[in-house]
Amino acid sequence: MGDNTLGNKFKITSFGESHGEVVGIVIDGIPAGLEINMEFIQSELEKRRPGQSNATTSRREPDHAKILSGLFNNKTTGAPIALVIENKDVDSSKYEKFKNLLRPSQVDYSALKKYGGFADYRGSGRFSGRITAGFVMAGAIAKLVLKKHDIEIFAYTRSIGAVIDDENYHIHDIDKYLTLREKSPVRAINSTIAKKMEELIEKVKDQKDSIGGTIKCVVNNFPEGIGGPVFNSIESKLSEGIFSIPAVRGVEFGAGFKAAGMRGSEHNDPWIVKNGKIQTAKNDSGGIIGGISTGMPIEFKVAIKPTPTIGKSQKTVNIKKMENVEVEFTGRHDPCIVPRAIVVVEAMCAVVLLDQLLIEGIIPSVLK
Amino acid sequence: MGDNTLGNKFKITSFGESHGEVVGIVIDGIPAGLEINMEFIQSELEKRRPGQSNATTSRREPDHAKILSGLFNNKTTGAPIALVIENKDVDSSKYEKFKNLLRPSQVDYSALKKYGGFADYRGSGRFSGRITAGFVMAGAIAKLVLKKHDIEIFAYTRSIGAVIDDENYHIHDIDKYLTLREKSPVRAINSTIAKKMEELIEKVKDQKDSIGGTIKCVVNNFPEGIGGPVFNSIESKLSEGIFSIPAVRGVEFGAGFKAAGMRGSEHNDPWIVKNGKIQTAKNDSGGIIGGISTGMPIEFKVAIKPTPTIGKSQKTVNIKKMENVEVEFTGRHDPCIVPRAIVVVEAMCAVVLLDQLLIEGIIPSVLK
Amino acid sequence: MGDNTLGNKFKITSFGESHGEVVGIVIDGIPAGLEINMEFIQSELEKRRPGQSNATTSRREPDHAKILSGLFNNKTTGAPIALVIENKDVDSSKYEKFKNLLRPSQVDYSALKKYGGFADYRGSGRFSGRITAGFVMAGAIAKLVLKKHDIEIFAYTRSIGAVIDDENYHIHDIDKYLTLREKSPVRAINSTIAKKMEELIEKVKDQKDSIGGTIKCVVNNFPEGIGGPVFNSIESKLSEGIFSIPAVRGVEFGAGFKAAGMRGSEHNDPWIVKNGKIQTAKNDSGGIIGGISTGMPIEFKVAIKPTPTIGKSQKTVNIKKMENVEVEFTGRHDPCIVPRAIVVVEAMCAVVLLDQLLIEGIIPSVLK
Amino acid sequence: MGDNTLGNKFKITSFGESHGEVVGIVIDGIPAGLEINMEFIQSELEKRRPGQSNATTSRREPDHAKILSGLFNNKTTGAPIALVIENKDVDSSKYEKFKNLLRPSQVDYSALKKYGGFADYRGSGRFSGRITAGFVMAGAIAKLVLKKHDIEIFAYTRSIGAVIDDENYHIHDIDKYLTLREKSPVRAINSTIAKKMEELIEKVKDQKDSIGGTIKCVVNNFPEGIGGPVFNSIESKLSEGIFSIPAVRGVEFGAGFKAAGMRGSEHNDPWIVKNGKIQTAKNDSGGIIGGISTGMPIEFKVAIKPTPTIGKSQKTVNIKKMENVEVEFTGRHDPCIVPRAIVVVEAMCAVVLLDQLLIEGIIPSVLK
Repeated sequence: MGDNTLGNKFKITSFGESHGEVVGIVIDGIPAGLEINMEFIQSELEKRRPGQSNATTSRREPDHAKILSGLFNNKTTGAPIALVIENKDVDSSKYEKFKNLLRPSQVDYSALKKYGGFADYRGSGRFSGRITAGFVMAGAIAKLVLKKHDIEIFAYTRSIGAVIDDENYHIHDIDKYLTLREKSPVRAINSTIAKKMEELIEKVKDQKDSIGGTIKCVVNNFPEGIGGPVFNSIESKLSEGIFSIPAVRGVEFGAGFKAAGMRGSEHNDPWIVKNGKIQTAKNDSGGIIGGISTGMPIEFKVAIKPTPTIGKSQKTVNIKKMENVEVEFTGRHDPCIVPRAIVVVEAMCAVVLLDQLLIEGIIPSVLK
Repeated sequence: MGDNTLGNKFKITSFGESHGEVVGIVIDGIPAGLEINMEFIQSELEKRRPGQSNATTSRREPDHAKILSGLFNNKTTGAPIALVIENKDVDSSKYEKFKNLLRPSQVDYSALKKYGGFADYRGSGRFSGRITAGFVMAGAIAKLVLKKHDIEIFAYTRSIGAVIDDENYHIHDIDKYLTLREKSPVRAINSTIAKKMEELIEKVKDQKDSIGGTIKCVVNNFPEGIGGPVFNSIESKLSEGIFSIPAVRGVEFGAGFKAAGMRGSEHNDPWIVKNGKIQTAKNDSGGIIGGISTGMPIEFKVAIKPTPTIGKSQKTVNIKKMENVEVEFTGRHDPCIVPRAIVVVEAMCAVVLLDQLLIEGIIPSVLK
Repeated sequence: MGDNTLGNKFKITSFGESHGEVVGIVIDGIPAGLEINMEFIQSELEKRRPGQSNATTSRREPDHAKILSGLFNNKTTGAPIALVIENKDVDSSKYEKFKNLLRPSQVDYSALKKYGGFADYRGSGRFSGRITAGFVMAGAIAKLVLKKHDIEIFAYTRSIGAVIDDENYHIHDIDKYLTLREKSPVRAINSTIAKKMEELIEKVKDQKDSIGGTIKCVVNNFPEGIGGPVFNSIESKLSEGIFSIPAVRGVEFGAGFKAAGMRGSEHNDPWIVKNGKIQTAKNDSGGIIGGISTGMPIEFKVAIKPTPTIGKSQKTVNIKKMENVEVEFTGRHDPCIVPRAIVVVEAMCAVVLLDQLLIEGIIPSVLK
Repeated sequence: MGDNTLGNKFKITSFGESHGEVVGIVIDGIPAGLEINMEFIQSELEKRRPGQSNATTSRREPDHAKILSGLFNNKTTGAPIALVIENKDVDSSKYEKFKNLLRPSQVDYSALKKYGGFADYRGSGRFSGRITAGFVMAGAIAKLVLKKHDIEIFAYTRSIGAVIDDENYHIHDIDKYLTLREKSPVRAINSTIAKKMEELIEKVKDQKDSIGGTIKCVVNNFPEGIGGPVFNSIESKLSEGIFSIPAVRGVEFGAGFKAAGMRGSEHNDPWIVKNGKIQTAKNDSGGIIGGISTGMPIEFKVAIKPTPTIGKSQKTVNIKKMENVEVEFTGRHDPCIVPRAIVVVEAMCAVVLLDQLLIEGIIPSVLK
C-alpha cells in the first residue's frame, strides 16, 4: 500500500515533480558490497533523457544523477541510496494559461478529484513521465545486482503505430542486440523497420499529432522456481510494476492475447531434455507457468498509448465556466514516447524481479 | 508480500487444495453491519462450479459455501469471515500414474523447482483452478458491499478462439445484460455469436483439445478520483489481482493494445459537459487516466489461454528417466475455461476495487 | 496493515470468535518439507487450554487442533496451513444480561465505537483471549521449524503480584527448565516461589479478584546479524507481536526499564573472546544491539495486567440509560492469566523471529 | 517489511548517514492542502539538535531543514515530501583509529555480521542517533495535521537515573506544560527535580560516564474507536515505532509494568458518565483497551538506556587480533540522550497515530 513505494525486500520510494526542484528515488534493500558504477547509471538515464533526437520532446535536461546517501568507499553499505536529478529547463508559464481547461486523456480531471485542486499542475507535476527518471536510476542499480548473477534484461521497440516487427528474436547475446537497437533513435532491432518507424514518427510530428506503440521485453537466465501460485505470481508482480509507468495500457506474457485464439495442442510448450537440461521446445508460456518461472526466458509485451499532449485542436471543457470549448494546446511533447520508454520498462522489470530474487534468498543481502 | 494474501484494508487469504479437505478463504476488512446473503454467495459459486454444462469438466462438486466465523445475527461484525467449500468428488488415482511426467504448460516443473518435490500434485493441488472458488466467495461479499454504493461489475465472454464479439456494448443496465449472458452456457451476450462459441467448444472437445478466449469486464458507477499516480494506479492493482487467476496471459485497459496503433488525436477522449456533469465523449481510456478513475466506466479485457490439460498425445519428459517421451494424458478437464472464469474475473475486480474504496475512505468501515 | 494478519514471509491470519463456531489461524510461508508433529501442536494447546487447574477459568474446552489444508503425506507442501479448534463449552446467556453495562477495563466501549454495535459481544467475541489459541498453533509450527535450526524459546512466570523471582537464570538447557516449569501450575521455575504464587492466586480468587504478573522469555541460539537498524529492529518486530496478545501492558528488552537508572559504564556489555568466539561478558542488551541480534540469548520481559473480569462489585455505566451504576458481573474467568499466557508469549516470539529468519534467507523455504 | 520504511497510509522512508552528505526522510500520504510551517519544523529540529546545552554532545550542526519536493504554493499537494538536513561538522578521523575495536553495547559487531564489513562505520553511520532528525521532520508535519484535528502530543523527561518525577500530571493545557518543560535543558516539568537531573548529568559527564532515563508521553483528544483487537492494536503500532528509536529498551502503556503488581479491583478503570460523556474515573489503561482507543488520553512511558559511548576505560575485543583489550574510546557524545529524545518520541508517536487516523478515514486525504 502507498502511492509512492513499491516492493518488499528491494523497495523503491519515488518523489519529486516535473517542475519542482528535483525528481528522486530512495532505493532500499540493495545488497551490501555492490560497487556502484555511476557511468552506467548515467548512461541508462541518457536513454530516457528528453531531447535525444528529433523523435523526442524539445525540453533540454542534462539529467545528471546525484547520490545523497548509502555509499561508502564507492560500495553499497546495506543502507538506502537516495538519488536525485535536478529540474533545470522548466518553463511553467503556459500551464497558467491552460489552468481551467481539461487536456483530453490527461490527468487534469482525475487529479482534481483526487487532490481537491492542490496538486502541482505545472508540467503535469507528479504525473509527469519525468518521474520515471527515478525508476531508471533504481533499475540501473537493480541491473548491476542482477548482472552479478548473469541475469540480463533487454527491451526494444516492437511496433510504432501499424509498423510492426513481429520477428520472434532468440536473444541469447544481449550485447549484440543492444548494439543493433542503439543504432536507431526509435530503438528497434531491424534497421529497415526502424527506418519506417522513424518516418512515421516524423510524419505524425509534422501533423501535430502523436502515436503509440508496443515494447517487447526479454529476461535471460532468470532462475527457475521463482514466484508464487496465487497472489505472488511473476505476472502479478511484473504487471503491477509495469502499469505504474505512465501511458501503459496493456501487458501480456508469452503468447499473450494471441493465446486466446489458440488451441491447447498449439499453445502448450512441449518439455524436452536437451544437453541433460529440462526445457521447453518453444516458449509461448513466456517463461512462466503457474505464476512461477520455468527457467526459459521471461517474455512480455507492453502497449504504450499515443502521447495525449498534441498540437491539434481538441474538444474539451472549461471547468471554471463549465462549458464545452475547442482548444489548441501548445507545449513541448514527444510525438511518440515509446523509444524513451524502453529503458523505463527494463528498469521496472529489473526492480520487480530483483525483489523476487531477494525475497526468495536467491540473491543474498551481502554480496560475496 | 506473501503468496496467499492480497489487499490492504480489504484483505483476502487463500488456502486449500484441489484434493485436500477444503478450499477456503479468510476475508478481512469487511465493513461491519453488512447483511450476508448466503443465496447470493451460493449463486456466484454456481457460476464457477464444475459440471454446469457440456462445456465444462465432468468433476461433480456441490461447492456448498460454509461460513466459519465473523457473523453475528447474520450481519458482519468487523471481524474476518472464513469461508470454505469441501472437496467431494476427488479421484487422485491417475495422478500417481503421471507422477514422473511433466504435463506441458502445466505447473509440474516449476512447482518441483519451487517446492522441492513436497507440493501436493493431486489435481494440481494448490495450483488448481479450484482455489478460485475462494476468490468467488470473497468477490460475492465484496459485491454486496459495492452494491450498497451502487457500484456494479459485469464481465462476459468476448471471444472464444477466433469467434469474437467486438461490439462495444454500453452496459448501463447490468441486470438486463446479466439475463442475456446467463441464457448461454458460454456466457456471451449476443445469442448468435454465443451459439458459434458453443459449437466451437463442442468441436474442440471432440478433438480432445482445448481453446482460449477473452473476457471483457465493465464497472459502472465507480467514483472518480480513486487510485494513484505512481505505484498505486488502478491498473497496477487490478492487473496484480487479475493475473493471480490461473490461465490469464494478458490484461489491457480501455483501448488496450489497440491504443498502440492509434494516434493521439484518435485515442484522446474529449471532455464534455453533459447535464451539468463532466464526462468524456468516448472511453478509450477505460475509465482510468493517470492511474486514477475518471468517473467513466472502468473497462478492461483479459486473455485466457487454452486449458493445458488436453487428451491429445503430447511430447514431454519423464523426469525420473530424463528421457523424451510422448504421452496421452487422461483426466477430467474443461475444453474451455472462459465461461467459468467470468465470475472469477468479476470477483477479483470486486475485491481489488473495494480495497481501494476502503483505503480512500469512500466506503466506511461501519455501514450505516 | 490489517487487523488480523501479521508477518511478511511467515504470515499468520487469525479468525474466529469466543462463542462462534471455531477459532482458527491460517499460517503461510511455512517451509516445505517439514514433518508436522500433531502431538506437539496439541501439547502446546494444552498449556493454554482453560480448565487446567484451579488457577484458571472453569470453562471446559478440549481445544482439539484440526488441520484443514497444506499437508501432503504429513509434510508441509509450501501451501498455507489452516488450523481450527471448535468452541464447545459456550454459554452466551449471561452476556445478554450485561449487554448495556460497560465492564470496566474491558473492550465493550471501544468496540462499540469501532464497530458501531455490530461486534459479537458474546464471551468478548473477537477480543477474547481465546483467539490466542490460534497464535499457539502457529507458534507450535514455527517452533518446529526453529528447532531444526537449534533455536529454542522458553518463557516462564517471573512474578505474580508482588511475588517475584528475580534470579537471572542462565538457561542453556531448556528441557531441564521446561521440566521445572511444568511441575507448577503457575509455570514458575523456583518451586518455593511458585508455591507462594499459587497461594496468592488462590487468595485473590477467594476474594473474587484477579492479579497481574510478568513473564520472562529467553531465545537461545538465535543467529547474529538479524534485524535492522531502523524500522525493522528486532525490538520493533517482537513488541508489535507481543502487544497483540490481550492483557500485555509493557515489553522491555535486556535490562529494560532498569537500564534507565543505570550508568553507561554499568550497563555496557563488555565484549570478550572466549573459546575463539566473540561474545559479551554479560547480557544487559538482551541479545540485541542497534536493533540487530548479537548472538547472545534474546531476553525480554512482558507485563500482564490483572484480568479485568472480576466478581467484586464495580462502578460503571448503563449506556442505554446513560447513568452511573454499581454492578457485580458474574461469569467464568481466570483469577490470573499469566500461567496460560506463557505459551502464548513463546508462540508469538517464535512467529516473529521465524519471519525474520525467513526474510533474511537464514532458513530456506524448502527444508533439506 | 523493509528496514527503512514505516507506516501504511502515512508512510515515512528514512535515508542518510551520520557522516554522509545528508540525513533525510520521504514522507508519503500527507493530506493535500496542508500549509507547511517551516518555522515549526525547524523549531522541532532545534529540540533534537546537538550542542543545545552542556548536557548534549559537542558536535555543532545547524540542522537546517530543506524541502526537495511535494510543495506547491507552500501547501502540500498529495505528493510525497522529501526533506533533508546536511551533515556539516563531520570529523571521521577517530573512527579509523578504533576500526578494529568493538565499542561495548554499540552496533559494531552486529552491523559487521549483518552487512559483512561494508557498513559505513563513521559516526555509527546508519545507526547514528542522527537519523532521528528525519523522524523529527516527519513528526513535525504529522503534528501539523493532527493539530488541525485538535490532537496534541506532549512528552517530557520523567526520570534521569534515580531522579524521578512520578507525579501523574493531568495535562489538559499542553502549551502551559510545554513552557514549563522548555525552561529546563533536561526537559522535565518540575523545576526542582529538573535541577537535580541537570546536576546528575553534569556529575556523570565529569566522570566520563553516561546515564539513562525515562520519558512519558501523553496524547490528548485522540478519537475513540481507533486501533484493532488483534495485530493492529494501538500498542503494537506505537511500540513498533518507538522501538525504532535508538537506545529505547522498554515501552509500557498506562500503568505498564506496575499493572503486573496490581489487582483487578485496583487496576480496572471504572466507567462514569460526566457531562453527558462516557469516560473513565482514572486512566490506568492509558487510553487503550483491547488495542482500541477509549477517548481518554493515550499515555505511555519509554525507557532510554545510558549512551553507550563513554570516556571511561572499557574491556573489549580487537577483532583483527581476536584478543581481549582495554580501551578508552574518545569522541563526542551526550552524557544523557533523554532531553534530546523527547521530541523524537513525540515525532514517532505523531507519525504512527496519524497513520491510524488516515487508515480509519477519520482524517481525510484532502483537507477542507
